[in-house]
Amino acid sequence: MRQIVIGAAQMGPNQKSDSREVIVARMVALLEQAAAKGCTLVVFPELALTTFFPRWYMDDQAEVDTWFEDEMPNEATRPLFDRARELGIAISIGYAEKTPDGHHFNTQILTDRQAKIIGKYRKTHLPGHSDYDHDRAFQHLEKRYFEPGDTGFPVWRTQDAIVGMLICNDRRWPEAYRVMGLQGVELVVLGYNTPSVNSQMGSEGLEQRLYHSELSMTAAAYQNATWVVGVAKAGDEDGHPLMGGSIIVDPNGYVVARAETEGDELLVHACDMDLCNFGKETIFDFERHRRIEHYGLITSQTGVVRPA
Amino acid sequence: MRQIVIGAAQMGPNQKSDSREVIVARMVALLEQAAAKGCTLVVFPELALTTFFPRWYMDDQAEVDTWFEDEMPNEATRPLFDRARELGIAISIGYAEKTPDGHHFNTQILTDRQAKIIGKYRKTHLPGHSDYDHDRAFQHLEKRYFEPGDTGFPVWRTQDAIVGMLICNDRRWPEAYRVMGLQGVELVVLGYNTPSVNSQMGSEGLEQRLYHSELSMTAAAYQNATWVVGVAKAGDEDGHPLMGGSIIVDPNGYVVARAETEGDELLVHACDMDLCNFGKETIFDFERHRRIEHYGLITSQTGVVRPA
Repeated sequence: MRQIVIGAAQMGPNQKSDSREVIVARMVALLEQAAAKGCTLVVFPELALTTFFPRWYMDDQAEVDTWFEDEMPNEATRPLFDRARELGIAISIGYAEKTPDGHHFNTQILTDRQAKIIGKYRKTHLPGHSDYDHDRAFQHLEKRYFEPGDTGFPVWRTQDAIVGMLICNDRRWPEAYRVMGLQGVELVVLGYNTPSVNSQMGSEGLEQRLYHSELSMTAAAYQNATWVVGVAKAGDEDGHPLMGGSIIVDPNGYVVARAETEGDELLVHACDMDLCNFGKETIFDFERHRRIEHYGLITSQTGVVRPA
Repeated sequence: MRQIVIGAAQMGPNQKSDSREVIVARMVALLEQAAAKGCTLVVFPELALTTFFPRWYMDDQAEVDTWFEDEMPNEATRPLFDRARELGIAISIGYAEKTPDGHHFNTQILTDRQAKIIGKYRKTHLPGHSDYDHDRAFQHLEKRYFEPGDTGFPVWRTQDAIVGMLICNDRRWPEAYRVMGLQGVELVVLGYNTPSVNSQMGSEGLEQRLYHSELSMTAAAYQNATWVVGVAKAGDEDGHPLMGGSIIVDPNGYVVARAETEGDELLVHACDMDLCNFGKETIFDFERHRRIEHYGLITSQTGVVRPA
């Protein structure tokens, strides 16, 4: 048994007016709860430090940049890193990253239990659009404010497991999990900010949106024989509802813990990494069963080409 | 609206001693039921014409070949093709195919409404093993009796839809659906024979096996915005139980029809192909969102390579 007690630290809404200091204090409180429950890894959501600002159209790059972090940790987040180090808890956090040379990414990091950053992932599958869209009920401007990630889908071998990261919309793309599965991933940690309403189909409804989120994570967990921890930022941000639905999924594709609220809420589960072994050695033993000679279109063709 | 009334013709068990004529008569009866309900396409299971013979170890190739069809249609299946033509119903059937030059495939065909074969798919992802396995509760010798399919994952543009086929274990592999998704697939028809018991983990249980089957099909339907029709051969074949769980899944990943028995049972649903459009044009608009530059491992590497 290779057990990791994992905390999925769902966060309630961050309003535009909330300072990072106020938000980080909530994250520290979740971390303290996790420590009391024996967690050694705590996963926070995408864009944990701010509101989901891609819903707001901005023209002024200086204004856009106020939502980004120039370094990590920084003054606002140092209390979280310090407390994590004291408690011996590894953390994973999503935030908007501005690089020294001016690139903008939607980023997630993983630390070790000494609060040292050991992994960085930059979101690959940016949803939404680049320009103001008058046909939508509200904006989703991730393609405006972020560049597609340049990291690919790396994994990191920690003391306890082979760990990978995804962010939000990435979780709907089987390609993302499979690239990590081919590196033996045992634990995928991911954060998300998902509007409760489909901006292009208001009738879709929250229930269907929660189903699609869970369906994507549970199928990927099963088909790659990996744990998946999906953590929401949820609740009403300045009148714009984000769904919750944070879950911890086992390597059989079963949900073993699920958030009940749309607020700050900690899920805890003792995850045995050895539960990945059976699937990886039998039905999803890729070496014996995959037939890459027939998968060519997946990497040779981006969009759809219909038959004549 | 581009509506196709589809019949998913689950079949109960075929015993070793059942002649193809007896089995085909049951298939014709299902076809008649489907006609009465207005179906224009009926999908039958994998290896519909015989028992699931890969559970039996055979050394004698002449004996193996008795389970294969040298041509299609043939004398035994002609009544089914003739009746389908009279009723104006397209059919899809799985069977063991022996080619004129002696190759053996696990095959599924699709006809038009005049009973003319317009598509042939050969199973890509063969589960199981090649040699007698003393560690299993029973044998699963697909890798012994079949070669991996040589067709890849083609789709066919019919009058009503872009249609693809998969067989059994293929349904668990997101690569298979994605290759068809990249060709605009709107309807995936597939048959299966899935033991109710995991030969390598008896404690797994039927419920989990049904869940995994459904999870794979529903996730793929959602993530490729396609209908999926999965049809079982079910029930007790000479003491070896096969699970049922035939389903019709809409392009949102919802099950709209589900088999209740493990016998001959027809599911019928009027499937609107235009329900595929929204997903294909928004969240799964591959051209806008896929990032093939990061998917390379999927086609360059068959098995797992773990980080150092």
